[in-house]
Order: sequence, then structure tokens, then C-alpha cells
Amino acid sequence: MRDVDEHTITDEVIDRFKDTPDPRLKQIVESLVHHLHDFVRDVEPSFDEWMGAIQFLTRTGQICSDSRQEFILLSDTLGVSMLVDAINHRMPEGATETTVLGPFYVEDPPVFANGADISAGQPGEPLYVDAQFTSPEGAPLAGATVDVWQSDSEGYYDVQRSDLEGAALRGRLFADEEGRVRFWSIAPTAYPIPYDGPVGDMLTATKRHPWRPAHLHFMVAAPGYETLVTHIFVAGDRYLESDAVFGVKSGLIDPFPPQAPGVAPDGRRMDRRWRRLDYRFGLKRAPAAAAAPAAQR
Amino acid sequence: MRDVDEHTITDEVIDRFKDTPDPRLKQIVESLVHHLHDFVRDVEPSFDEWMGAIQFLTRTGQICSDSRQEFILLSDTLGVSMLVDAINHRMPEGATETTVLGPFYVEDPPVFANGADISAGQPGEPLYVDAQFTSPEGAPLAGATVDVWQSDSEGYYDVQRSDLEGAALRGRLFADEEGRVRFWSIAPTAYPIPYDGPVGDMLTATKRHPWRPAHLHFMVAAPGYETLVTHIFVAGDRYLESDAVFGVKSGLIDPFPPQAPGVAPDGRRMDRRWRRLDYRFGLKRAPAAAAAPAAQR
Repeated sequence: MRDVDEHTITDEVIDRFKDTPDPRLKQIVESLVHHLHDFVRDVEPSFDEWMGAIQFLTRTGQICSDSRQEFILLSDTLGVSMLVDAINHRMPEGATETTVLGPFYVEDPPVFANGADISAGQPGEPLYVDAQFTSPEGAPLAGATVDVWQSDSEGYYDVQRSDLEGAALRGRLFADEEGRVRFWSIAPTAYPIPYDGPVGDMLTATKRHPWRPAHLHFMVAAPGYETLVTHIFVAGDRYLESDAVFGVKSGLIDPFPPQAPGVAPDGRRMDRRWRRLDYRFGLKRAPAAAAAPAAQR
Repeated sequence: MRDVDEHTITDEVIDRFKDTPDPRLKQIVESLVHHLHDFVRDVEPSFDEWMGAIQFLTRTGQICSDSRQEFILLSDTLGVSMLVDAINHRMPEGATETTVLGPFYVEDPPVFANGADISAGQPGEPLYVDAQFTSPEGAPLAGATVDVWQSDSEGYYDVQRSDLEGAALRGRLFADEEGRVRFWSIAPTAYPIPYDGPVGDMLTATKRHPWRPAHLHFMVAAPGYETLVTHIFVAGDRYLESDAVFGVKSGLIDPFPPQAPGVAPDGRRMDRRWRRLDYRFGLKRAPAAAAAPAAQR
């Protein structure tokens, strides 16, 4: 009988997983036990603190539903989601950085022609977007599938609006021969992540706010390239330095420069202030394509 | 704008907790982020693996109910509960080691006089227990409150039996002037922890079994001493080396020596084989009492 104490129990538990058939699962549980035990030894929780952790995790699971994923929110607010993103997207020169998908993406959004207005009549400051999608070296990706989605002028996505029927401020466009899409929308706004659950309690207890800075989401797919999931953030937003989910990267901030009334690039006559976003996105080659880069151009 | 990558994000997240008012909470969240990020960097989860973890934790929370606590079971099976126990019970010489409380303790169990039978007629091999409770130096703790509980001959606790009314195989006794309690019961048996949920899935995927070796639970309270929560395990049990919750310590194993038919210590005539447990338990002084040990004798 090998007696275990607070120092030797970790090896004992890891040893118990020795017959795990899947080597990857074995690696994960061994590492989990190692780091989890180190955490416990580090903070030396009282029994009451341990029970508090059990209850926090239980509440986090129980508030999850078809329309809410509190464990993803916990992962987001502890920086784990962005860490997993960084590990899975080590980007080469010329490729646009990635950030979190977020909970508001909807599969198969409505399709728009180039130049269309995706705002579905939602009020806000008009925004004209001219985006180009290329290889890391700048070769246009004609036909790329470009999904965009964003919050409205009050900080809500369409799926959070019970008064809306159908999509608004989201859509799918296809890049033209220059690899470009153009569309009208409205300027996105900052918004809080859901904070009426355990994650909100954690933010409150640690004096953190739940806000995300204003941003426009993109998900871009092109054959031979890794699908790009990212946002472009609006420069000057007060939450850029303190995004609740740590999603901001400086290369993803754009001034969305304000424009005086006049004629827009597509000839539309603007009688009020509007903004524009001109941005070039570089996509990373998928691993198989990277082996034969010449074939991709 | 400080740009973060997979290495610098940890400091960025820890910095975000800098205004946490409660210094203990601040210490805990900082350590959590540090160790959690180290774990993620160590295993480099794919997006699918990360989503698998989110779903495992969600299922673990959602199966919890008034009568089931799957996160405690997860803590138990990962050795965390015993690690927390070890950290909170660094025992002096002469004090009995502790182990997990388990989910089957019931507050305010039925009270029995010394010498009573607590089995409520449950079938099994008769067991006579003679236990003494003392200070670490061996001074008897007269009047100590002794709660005992155990599984039946089929591996179930009374609270798991829908066909039972009232308690069986559990009770409260009070130590006599020699610090002793004596009672009749039946020999406890091995049993599996609940394995029809996410924790059971983890055990199956890692080829671990859900069994706990046979044991008799004790919770002992005496003024001026830390309440002792422990089990005494039956020597020879096939699961002693592989308790699913890592609760076994060699000092807590006893042969429960089998006895031939004849006369028991209390004069009861036994016409079949029976077992006995004679055990001395040492209790640790509570911190306040330790400052004035002479007053405790």
C-alpha cells in the first residue's frame, strides 16, 4: 500500500490513468491532473472555498441552454478562448490575425449582391465597407465566401431582438475578380456580454466590466486557405484596452474614418455624416496547399 | 495598445484582475489563470478538443440535482478532494488520518445507546465495533459525539434504497467515560460511485473502474478538537490499491478480524462467523485549544 500525501498524490492519480487507450486523451488528462493539483497546492483552498468552486461550476453548467453557453463565456473572460485561438492560428507574414468567433454567428446567413445594404433598415450612422481578400502575398481570392455580422446602434445582435423577424446586420457576399466585397451597413457599437449569471458574478466580484469594444465580424472561406475568423474594431472605442474577452489585437483596429456629406464611392449621395472601412485581409494557406504554393496562385 | 500573443496573454489577463477588492479572491483568480493557461499551452488543444471540454463541463453541471453532485464526483476522481483534505488536515503524531466525507452522510442520524445494533435488521456478516476516541497523547474524550454510517451487504447506503423507510446502518453514539463506543452492525461492502454520467464516461474512456473498497465511516466531534472525518477500510478488499476517489491511507486499514462462533465481548452468543473492529482514534486539537493544551486534559 503506497501512502499518498499532498505531494505524492499527483503521481498516484496520474498513474491511475496509465491504461488510457487513446494517447492524446492520456496526455490531456495527465497534464490536467498535474496543473490542477499545482493550482490547489498553490492556493491551499479551505473546505468552504473548495465547496464554493464546486457550486460556481455547477451554476455555470446549469444556466447553459440552447441559446446560452456560460462555460464559453467563462473561457472567454479568463482569456482561455483567445489563448486557444492563438495556439491554433500561428499566422505567417501577410495573413490577418484571428480573434474569437463569439456566440452570435448564424449559419447560412442571407446572401447579398456586391454593393447591397445589409442593415435591413436598422437606424445608425451609415457605413460603407470596401474589403479585399488575398493570399499572404496579396494575390486576390476571387469568389471567396465572406460572412459579416455586427451589433446594431444599441449594442444588440438581431438574434437578441425578439421584435425582429429575420436577419439584420448580417449577410453573405462573394468576392469579385479583384477579391473584393463592398456593402452598406451602419457603424457597430460596443455591447456587454451577458452578465446576469455566474460569469457576471465573477466580473462583479473582481471589479471587471462586461463590455466589448465596437467591432465588425468577418468569417472568410476560400478553397486552399484556412477559414479566417476575425473582427475589425473601431479605433477610439473606450473598451479597446479592456475588452472583456481579450479579443483585441492592434492590427485589427481601423479608424472607420468619418466622411463629410457628399458622394459615396458607389455614387450614392449622402446628406449626413457617414463612415467607411477599407481593409485588406490576408488568408493563411491551409496545410495541404502550403505544400504546393505555386498551385494556389 | 499592448498586443498579446500566446505567451503574453497570461499577464494581460492577470493584470485585468488587479482591482479585485478581496485579496484572497485576487490570489485565487490570479493563480487559476496562471495554472489554467499553463495547462492550455502544455496540451495545445485543437478547437474541437476545446469545444469537447466545454461540453463535458456543461454536462457535468447539468446532471447535478438535489441528490447528485457530479462536480464533487469529478473532484473526487481527479484526486482533488483528497488533496484539499490533505492540505486542510496536516495531522500531528497521534492523530488519526482523515479522508473524504463522501455523499452519503446524513445530518442528525438516529441516536443509539452504547452496545446497540445499528443495522435495522439488514442482512450481512455481523460486526462488533469497539472504538476509543482520545487526544493525540491518548487521553480519553468522554462524551465525544460519534456518527457512523456504511453500505449494506449489496453495496448500497440506506438513502439509495427506495424500499427503505428511515435510517439503516447509520447512527450517533456518545463516548463513555473511557472515551469508548461499542455497537453491533454488519460488515460493510465495496460499491461503485455513480458512473452513468460524464464522470463515468471519463472513467470508461480511461479504463478506470468506479469502485470504492469496503469501509466504515466515522465523524467524531469533541469540544476543543477538530472534527474528525474518516473511514476505516477492510483489509484484503480488492479495491484498496485502486479506490476510485483515492481515499485509502494505510493507517486506516484494519483486518476486521473474523471470529469463530462463540461468545462475543458483550456476552451475546454467536452461532455463526462474525467480525470485530477494535480501533483507537486520536483527534487533533483545534487551533484555539492548541494554545492552551493543559486545559484540554
